[in-house]
Amino acid sequence: MKKIAILGSTGSIGTQTLDVVRRNQDIQVLALSAGSNIKVLEEQIREFHPRLAAVWKDEKAKELAVRVADTDTRVVSGMDGLLELSVLEGTELLVTAIVGMIGILPTIEAIKAGKDIALANKETLVTAGHIIMPLAQSRGVRILPVDSEHSAIFQCLNGEDTGTVSRLLITASGGPFRGKKTEELRNVKVEDALKHPNWAMGRKITIDSATLVNKGLEVMEAKWLFGVDLDRIQVVVQPKSVIHSMVEFRDGSIMAQLGTPDMRLPIQYALYGGARKYLGGERLDFFQLADIAFEAPDTETFRGLPLAMEASEAGGSMPTVFNAANEMAVGKFLKRSIGFLDIYHIIEESMGRHQVVNNPTVDEILEIEKDTYKWIESRW
Amino acid sequence: MKKIAILGSTGSIGTQTLDVVRRNQDIQVLALSAGSNIKVLEEQIREFHPRLAAVWKDEKAKELAVRVADTDTRVVSGMDGLLELSVLEGTELLVTAIVGMIGILPTIEAIKAGKDIALANKETLVTAGHIIMPLAQSRGVRILPVDSEHSAIFQCLNGEDTGTVSRLLITASGGPFRGKKTEELRNVKVEDALKHPNWAMGRKITIDSATLVNKGLEVMEAKWLFGVDLDRIQVVVQPKSVIHSMVEFRDGSIMAQLGTPDMRLPIQYALYGGARKYLGGERLDFFQLADIAFEAPDTETFRGLPLAMEASEAGGSMPTVFNAANEMAVGKFLKRSIGFLDIYHIIEESMGRHQVVNNPTVDEILEIEKDTYKWIESRW
Repeated sequence: MKKIAILGSTGSIGTQTLDVVRRNQDIQVLALSAGSNIKVLEEQIREFHPRLAAVWKDEKAKELAVRVADTDTRVVSGMDGLLELSVLEGTELLVTAIVGMIGILPTIEAIKAGKDIALANKETLVTAGHIIMPLAQSRGVRILPVDSEHSAIFQCLNGEDTGTVSRLLITASGGPFRGKKTEELRNVKVEDALKHPNWAMGRKITIDSATLVNKGLEVMEAKWLFGVDLDRIQVVVQPKSVIHSMVEFRDGSIMAQLGTPDMRLPIQYALYGGARKYLGGERLDFFQLADIAFEAPDTETFRGLPLAMEASEAGGSMPTVFNAANEMAVGKFLKRSIGFLDIYHIIEESMGRHQVVNNPTVDEILEIEKDTYKWIESRW
Repeated sequence: MKKIAILGSTGSIGTQTLDVVRRNQDIQVLALSAGSNIKVLEEQIREFHPRLAAVWKDEKAKELAVRVADTDTRVVSGMDGLLELSVLEGTELLVTAIVGMIGILPTIEAIKAGKDIALANKETLVTAGHIIMPLAQSRGVRILPVDSEHSAIFQCLNGEDTGTVSRLLITASGGPFRGKKTEELRNVKVEDALKHPNWAMGRKITIDSATLVNKGLEVMEAKWLFGVDLDRIQVVVQPKSVIHSMVEFRDGSIMAQLGTPDMRLPIQYALYGGARKYLGGERLDFFQLADIAFEAPDTETFRGLPLAMEASEAGGSMPTVFNAANEMAVGKFLKRSIGFLDIYHIIEESMGRHQVVNNPTVDEILEIEKDTYKWIESRW
C-alpha cells in the first residue's frame, strides 16, 4: 500500500489525483488539504478517510472540524497545519498540488522528512530550485514532476544517461491567442483568455498559458529539475498539445512522449514513481489526429516567455519577482481591473525595480514576494 | 575497445557501419565480408586492417587473396567462410548486414558462440524467429536492431517494463507510390519505384518500401524481436519519416523516437548496445519541419502489408515462402521481366500452393526457400 498526502486536494490537480487513487487499490491517502473549500474537502474526507485534513483559513478549519466530528479525521489549520501534513508519519509521498509560494515551506519540510515529492506546485522550483534540488539530492528524495511537459521529459529520460542529453524541447499549445499580434490583445476579455484550446485547467494557469508565462515558468522549472542550462531548452509551439515534450540526445535521436490531454497520466506516473500502471481513458488515434504542426513561439507578442528567460538569467531572487508579479497581475486581470497586456507591463516594471539577491533563503524569497505584492498594490 | 565483425560490409548498411567505426576511436573491426564486390572490400581491408575477410564467391575470394597478399588479412570464401567469420574469436558483436536467407546460419552460429547480434538482416527473424529468439535468450545474447523502425521501438522500450506495452506503432513513409491506386501501379517503371521519398537505401529494400512488403517484414520482425502479438502492432503512415516508430503503454502514454533519416544513428546505437555516443550530422528542426502528417496504410492497393500479416498468421514456414517469393519477384521486377503488381501476384500464388510446416528447422527453411524459387522460375 502506497501512502500519500495531498497538499491542495480540492483544486484541479488535487481532485484528479484523488481520481487516480480511486482507480487504484494500492494507494492510501493519509492527509488532504484545502484553502477554504471545505464543502469539497468534507466529501473527500468521507470518501478517503484521511487521518489528517489541513485547511488554510482558521475559521473554515473550525467549521470543518464540527462538520466531520463523526469521522476519525483530525482537522488542522494555517501554515502549522500544512507543515504537520507534509511531515505526517507513514506517508511516503507528498503531492504538492497547492498553488503559490505557500507550497515552498511544506515541500522543504517534507523533503527533510524523507518524503518523495510529486511536484505540481510551480513556484517551488521557480523561486527556490537552488534550495530544493540540492536538499532533495542530499536526502535521497525523488522530485517527481506532475506537470505534463516535465512528466514527458521525465519519461523520455527513463533509462537514459542524463549526461547524453543535448536539448530539452518543451512543447507549447501557444494558448487561445496564438497567431494574434499585440494590438489585438489589448482589449481581450477574461472569458477569451480562459478558453484554453486543449487542456481543462484552473483559472490562473489558463491565463498563464495565454500569456506564455506558464511556458516561461516551465522552462525555469525544467532547468532545475533536469539540471540543463537555459540555452539548451527550446520551446516548440505545437497547437494540438499531442506531443507533451521531447528530449534530444547527443546522437541526434529525439525521444518524445505523446498522449491525449489527460492529467491523470502524469499524476499516476508520479504517484508510482515512474512505473506504468493501467490507466483507462481515450487513446491517441493517429488517423483521426491527421497531423501535428510545429511553429516557433511568437516571443515578440507573447512576452511571458522572454521575460521568464530574462528572470532566469538574472537568477537569484529575480524569478521570485517574476512569479509574484505575474500572480498578482493575473489576479487583477481576472478581477477585470487591468487589461491583458498590463500583465506583461506589471512583470516588467516589477523586475526593473528589483535588485537581485543571490542564493536567497526561503525567508528572503517570501519577503521579496510580499514586497513585490505591496509595490504592485501601491501602483495599480 | 569494442571488437566487431561485419557480415556484408560493402552494402548500404555495411558501409554506414564502417562510417560509424571511422568516427569512433573505440571500435575495432576484426572481420569483413562481401558477396562479390572485392574492389570495395579491398579498400575496406586497407583502411580497417581486419584479421579476416570472407567473400561469398570462390573465384572472387581467390582474386582478392592475391590483391591483399601484402596485408595481414586472411581471405576465406563461401558459407564456410561466413561461418568462420561469424564465430571469430575475440569479436563481441556481429553485424548482420547481409541481405537474404544466407544470413541465417552465420547468425545462429554467432549466437551459439555468445556474440551479440546487431541485426540488419530481415530474413533472420522473419523466417527463423522461432529458432533465433529462444536461442539468443538461452545464450544470454542480445539481438540489437539496426533497422530504424525497430531501433526506434528499442529506444522507446529503454528503461521500460515490457509487460506494460499495449501496442507497437510502426511508422511507414508509404513509399514513392503513396496515394496511387492499383490501376496506376500497373505500368510503373523500376526508376519510379526506386525513388524513395526519404531514405537512401539498397535497391531491393527500396522496391520493398514501394510495395509495403518491407513494412510487412518489419511487422513480422517486430513480433519476434519484442514478443508482441500481431494484433498489437499497428502500421501508421507518416510520409516524412520523422517519427521512426512508437510504443503505446498500458497507461495510454506513447513514447516515440524521432530523427533525421540517418541510418548511422540506429547502427551506432546497436554497436554500443543502447548507449548514446555523440554522432555528428543534421539535427531535426521542428520549425523547418512545420508538420508531421499521419494516415492509415492503403492495404487494398499496397498488398505487401496484408499478405505479410496473412503469412505471419499462418506461421511456421509461411513467412519463408512470403519472403522467398518476394525476393525472387523483386529481382525479376528489377530486371524488368515482370510488372510491379506481379510482385504481389507471385507472393500470393506462392503462398497459396504452400503447405505450412510448423516450427521448421533451418534446413527445412532453406529447402522451402529453394523450392519456392524453383516453382516461381518454372512459372514466370
